[in-house]
Amino acid sequence: MITETVTQRDGGVAVTEVKQHRAIIEGVQPEIDSGRFAIKRVIGEQVVVEADIFADGYDAVMAVLLYRKSTESYWCETPMEFLVNDRWRGAFTVTEMGEYVYTLRAWVDHFKTWRRDLQKRLAAGQDVSVDLLIGADLIDAASKRAQGEEARQLQSIAARLHGEETQFDRAQLALDDNLYRLMMRYPDLRYAYTYDKQLRVTVERLRARFSAWYELFPRSCSPTPVRHGTFRDCAERLSYVAAMGFDIVYLPPIHPIGRAFRKGKNNAVVAQSGDVGSPWAIGAAEGGHKAIHPELGTLEDFCYLVRRARDLGMEIALDIAFQCSPDHPYVTEHPEWFVKRPDGTIQYAENPPKKYQDIYPINFETTNAQGLWEELRSVMLFWIEQGVHVFRVDNPHTKSFYFWEWAISSIKQRYPETIFLSEAFTRPKVMYNLAKLGFTQSYTYFTWRNSKWELTQYMTELTQTQVREFFRPNFWPNTPDILHAFLQHGGRAAFKIRLVLAATMTASYGLYGPVFELCVNIPREPGSEEYLDSEKYQLRHWNLDHPDSLRDLMTRVNWIRRENPALQSDWSIRFHPTDNEQIICYSKRTPDYSNLILVVASFDPVHTQVGWVGVDLNELGIDSNRPYMVHDLLTGATYTWQTWSWNYVELRPHNVAAHIFRVEQP
Amino acid sequence: MITETVTQRDGGVAVTEVKQHRAIIEGVQPEIDSGRFAIKRVIGEQVVVEADIFADGYDAVMAVLLYRKSTESYWCETPMEFLVNDRWRGAFTVTEMGEYVYTLRAWVDHFKTWRRDLQKRLAAGQDVSVDLLIGADLIDAASKRAQGEEARQLQSIAARLHGEETQFDRAQLALDDNLYRLMMRYPDLRYAYTYDKQLRVTVERLRARFSAWYELFPRSCSPTPVRHGTFRDCAERLSYVAAMGFDIVYLPPIHPIGRAFRKGKNNAVVAQSGDVGSPWAIGAAEGGHKAIHPELGTLEDFCYLVRRARDLGMEIALDIAFQCSPDHPYVTEHPEWFVKRPDGTIQYAENPPKKYQDIYPINFETTNAQGLWEELRSVMLFWIEQGVHVFRVDNPHTKSFYFWEWAISSIKQRYPETIFLSEAFTRPKVMYNLAKLGFTQSYTYFTWRNSKWELTQYMTELTQTQVREFFRPNFWPNTPDILHAFLQHGGRAAFKIRLVLAATMTASYGLYGPVFELCVNIPREPGSEEYLDSEKYQLRHWNLDHPDSLRDLMTRVNWIRRENPALQSDWSIRFHPTDNEQIICYSKRTPDYSNLILVVASFDPVHTQVGWVGVDLNELGIDSNRPYMVHDLLTGATYTWQTWSWNYVELRPHNVAAHIFRVEQP
Repeated sequence: MITETVTQRDGGVAVTEVKQHRAIIEGVQPEIDSGRFAIKRVIGEQVVVEADIFADGYDAVMAVLLYRKSTESYWCETPMEFLVNDRWRGAFTVTEMGEYVYTLRAWVDHFKTWRRDLQKRLAAGQDVSVDLLIGADLIDAASKRAQGEEARQLQSIAARLHGEETQFDRAQLALDDNLYRLMMRYPDLRYAYTYDKQLRVTVERLRARFSAWYELFPRSCSPTPVRHGTFRDCAERLSYVAAMGFDIVYLPPIHPIGRAFRKGKNNAVVAQSGDVGSPWAIGAAEGGHKAIHPELGTLEDFCYLVRRARDLGMEIALDIAFQCSPDHPYVTEHPEWFVKRPDGTIQYAENPPKKYQDIYPINFETTNAQGLWEELRSVMLFWIEQGVHVFRVDNPHTKSFYFWEWAISSIKQRYPETIFLSEAFTRPKVMYNLAKLGFTQSYTYFTWRNSKWELTQYMTELTQTQVREFFRPNFWPNTPDILHAFLQHGGRAAFKIRLVLAATMTASYGLYGPVFELCVNIPREPGSEEYLDSEKYQLRHWNLDHPDSLRDLMTRVNWIRRENPALQSDWSIRFHPTDNEQIICYSKRTPDYSNLILVVASFDPVHTQVGWVGVDLNELGIDSNRPYMVHDLLTGATYTWQTWSWNYVELRPHNVAAHIFRVEQP
Repeated sequence: MITETVTQRDGGVAVTEVKQHRAIIEGVQPEIDSGRFAIKRVIGEQVVVEADIFADGYDAVMAVLLYRKSTESYWCETPMEFLVNDRWRGAFTVTEMGEYVYTLRAWVDHFKTWRRDLQKRLAAGQDVSVDLLIGADLIDAASKRAQGEEARQLQSIAARLHGEETQFDRAQLALDDNLYRLMMRYPDLRYAYTYDKQLRVTVERLRARFSAWYELFPRSCSPTPVRHGTFRDCAERLSYVAAMGFDIVYLPPIHPIGRAFRKGKNNAVVAQSGDVGSPWAIGAAEGGHKAIHPELGTLEDFCYLVRRARDLGMEIALDIAFQCSPDHPYVTEHPEWFVKRPDGTIQYAENPPKKYQDIYPINFETTNAQGLWEELRSVMLFWIEQGVHVFRVDNPHTKSFYFWEWAISSIKQRYPETIFLSEAFTRPKVMYNLAKLGFTQSYTYFTWRNSKWELTQYMTELTQTQVREFFRPNFWPNTPDILHAFLQHGGRAAFKIRLVLAATMTASYGLYGPVFELCVNIPREPGSEEYLDSEKYQLRHWNLDHPDSLRDLMTRVNWIRRENPALQSDWSIRFHPTDNEQIICYSKRTPDYSNLILVVASFDPVHTQVGWVGVDLNELGIDSNRPYMVHDLLTGATYTWQTWSWNYVELRPHNVAAHIFRVEQP
């Protein structure tokens, strides 16, 4: 691009630059908030980039997609393809964890224009003698940009176009495909335009996209009812979890629990002697966020647990809850990190008129923000050094957004394998913002979406809009804070339905056990979403071998997820019509159609629901001239479905009120 | 905002800034291409700005919209209002031509939070003694930001909150509305976030939005058939045009016409002796773009024409066609502005295999781009100095985009009243891009949209999407280049339909006369959109008093446009259902509902069409409990329409196959 400063000749009118590039690039997708935020991918995925690209006049346009790892300086280049209506598309594959950047370049290509026009002139039988000389000049100029053998080839062709061969022969030479390919390697980029933004991609490992989480309280892992469970007990429990096919075992906070204002059983304001308190009231004389609650064991025990999980093909996820009990060492060491009230006390957490006196929130408006940020990041770095690469972050939306952006990006520069799950059950734009800031996965509204319309709308928003570029949903049917009314009232059948939906709608899902598989569904009081006798405030002991346990179903579902790549990503989900509002039908598929999954599920945990489903055959690549087979991966049953009509389904709660079909058309 | 550099404690992890602002501003509308381009308004219009604004945690957020003329340095500030789902809205009115800028600021307001929470605590009957002290501190801090009497007031209230009055009295004092308003004037902006973009508004005069254009060839204005018309003849013709109610009289190029390769009548490749040539073949020995074709008269005559138009309340628009005949002085004075072929000739215009040897396109890839840009801009400045403030730009999409952006913006800095109409009949994204670059109004696809579905889609895209922020459509039923088949075959009734549609759908419209009012509809040959014996290549003489002239209807329609402010802008257009695909129904209204226009038009120039229209009463603010009146402003007829059913219409081509109703509900 040539730019010169225009000297001002007529006073009052702006001086500017003469810009001579001719191509325009706009409407670039994906591009999050004008490029402020990165998109997300995992290793091996494609980044498909589209843009509106055009130039003034009628000359032919060329466009390339440029990309590189942000630590490298050379751009890789891949051509973009014209689609329709000035829309172009290009793609590249990311192969390493870390950050990539991409941008676009476009230009008017005089050789391409000339070649196109020469074909038209020849077709019209015009004399092209001067045109051949124009082409010779373009080729000669390209030869000066080329080197070695290719430069010589171009020079020789240019000379022949100037030469004595017949016009017909010279025209054939000029239109040769090899010449075109060679010329395209040495374009004249003097007036090329390079897009003014470099857009970022955060590339993570596969588990960032495809993961099955299991939450448990280590202190309830004791094999005997009365004792406080330990990390060693928990390590024993891991084989049970691994056998069900989970990837990530997430533990509530493992740090010393505060004593001041400790909550009693069922969140009683005053604890009784012997009450163990909430693990989220972090910090005591024994230490804070880098310490371990003594009754769970030692750091060595914890590291054993981490190793044991790894040996079983799983990972331990820790809970990052940046808040303090009044006994936390920070309170005395860093009083400036808390709000002091005029009466000299420290401000506890509140949602007026409710008071949470056992919790001191951290004040990010502190005058010592730098010290605070570094200390909080050092907490995560400490646990990373103990082998933890997955964090579930508690209420990130009540902490500084900029802190998260800085902490996550700087940690991932050094440890790109780290996964951060955002537990922000708040308003949609806040949840999306946290995902943009860097959180790998996010909790969602799934827990409260129990109808076909709601789930269809929600999944469509998450997977068919730009949201999918930065927000990876992780569906949880329950958490220690949420026992939904559907589970309370729907019983065992409801748990099965929610399990199938969570595990097949999103490639990442999680549940809180063993209460989930044991179908524990008694709320603290009617209308509450809190569990009665919640593990948040007391030790529990579970009979894992109860005959009603959903353990076998969970094992089956996780096995289906592992065997079927269609279930390992979210973007391919499509909803198919059914004639019954209680029945939902959706499919997922691999890009090459080699694995097709069709889920049909009922929202009714009480009655048998029957209906007809109208599969969009085109979406699944099914030939509409012959029937196809659907194999229920839950039961092993196989049905032949017709392409000329909708197909009948019957969903019985006392079995599983859902089918997970693999679709095949031999 | 406090920012500090974080020193790096753990090698390899990025150093960054501690950002402590807490509010996030995103999803700002309007914002064109990340703020790259300005939105457009005319004097007196509002700029309504919306954004997603939120902060971490649960504290109360405040937001303001900031705006100023770009030549001023002080920001004006207006509060934004919370809508729903973290969406906020603010607005300001632009009162002067030129450029405005706007941006947004948001912050967590501790006083607002504290006041909200105090109310909750009081409602719960809690002791608030410490809270009152916290409030006193906030008020005391604000007093230090205030001055004079207000500072003293705040200090005094802070002191009383610390004082001996009862808790009840002090709480009442703290919640006083006047105190709240006073506190809102002195917010704590330490952690406020100001949006990182300053977005631009180009403010123009009313005629940029509301204008009726009439195109005519001055050389056909002679009162006697044989003579070449002059500017003096044209000046005589103006009263005829003014009487019909047009605002802008647009003249094809008025410059000396080239002789080399001059085209003959009906675009014959070889001109006959006496053929006058095309006005778009600009430049001859007599001069170029700043000269006047001698047969039209002198510069003095032209200035007389401009004055005469002004006296009649109209303006003259000139055609800016940056291309040259081979005889143009630029060809010898600035050969570097043209492409030279290897045989020494200059490259003429082509659309291979077609050749336009009478036209040399300008080469914006010239090495003397600075000189070229300044010369071309000087052409427009020259005519501005002769009193011309409106330009119709011929094929702007075949010239440098950046040239237009620079030329228009720099001209408008000095002459903000200048109006540029883009004549780019090309692909949609290119047309939109030219509008973004600064063109005031744009030609459209209207000429080729002759069905209800097409026009509904098109007008919805133009007026109900972000396109409306930068693209102002100007609908033309005909031009010297386009005699659409609908007019060719539909005859006089078709002209009436297209007139009503153009003049009521868009606030700016234009037509090419007198062929339009005389319903001239013979194409050069079957299938062509060219006029037979087109004025582009020969002199014509028109009988303006022909009894079939649509002059009275045009006068009536322009009068209706002037009397009804609803028709003077485009954003309020809404389409109402009809039960007949040949009948379209749409409304426009003023923001205060004081002027309501409902248009019902047929697309059938041959048969009477009848049908029922279902008016959206809510859109027009009509009380559905009683009937309303529709007055046909074309005929004077009045009908009473029912609100409990659709209403019947009958559209007869031999009258006008359209109603322009003013809607009233007394």
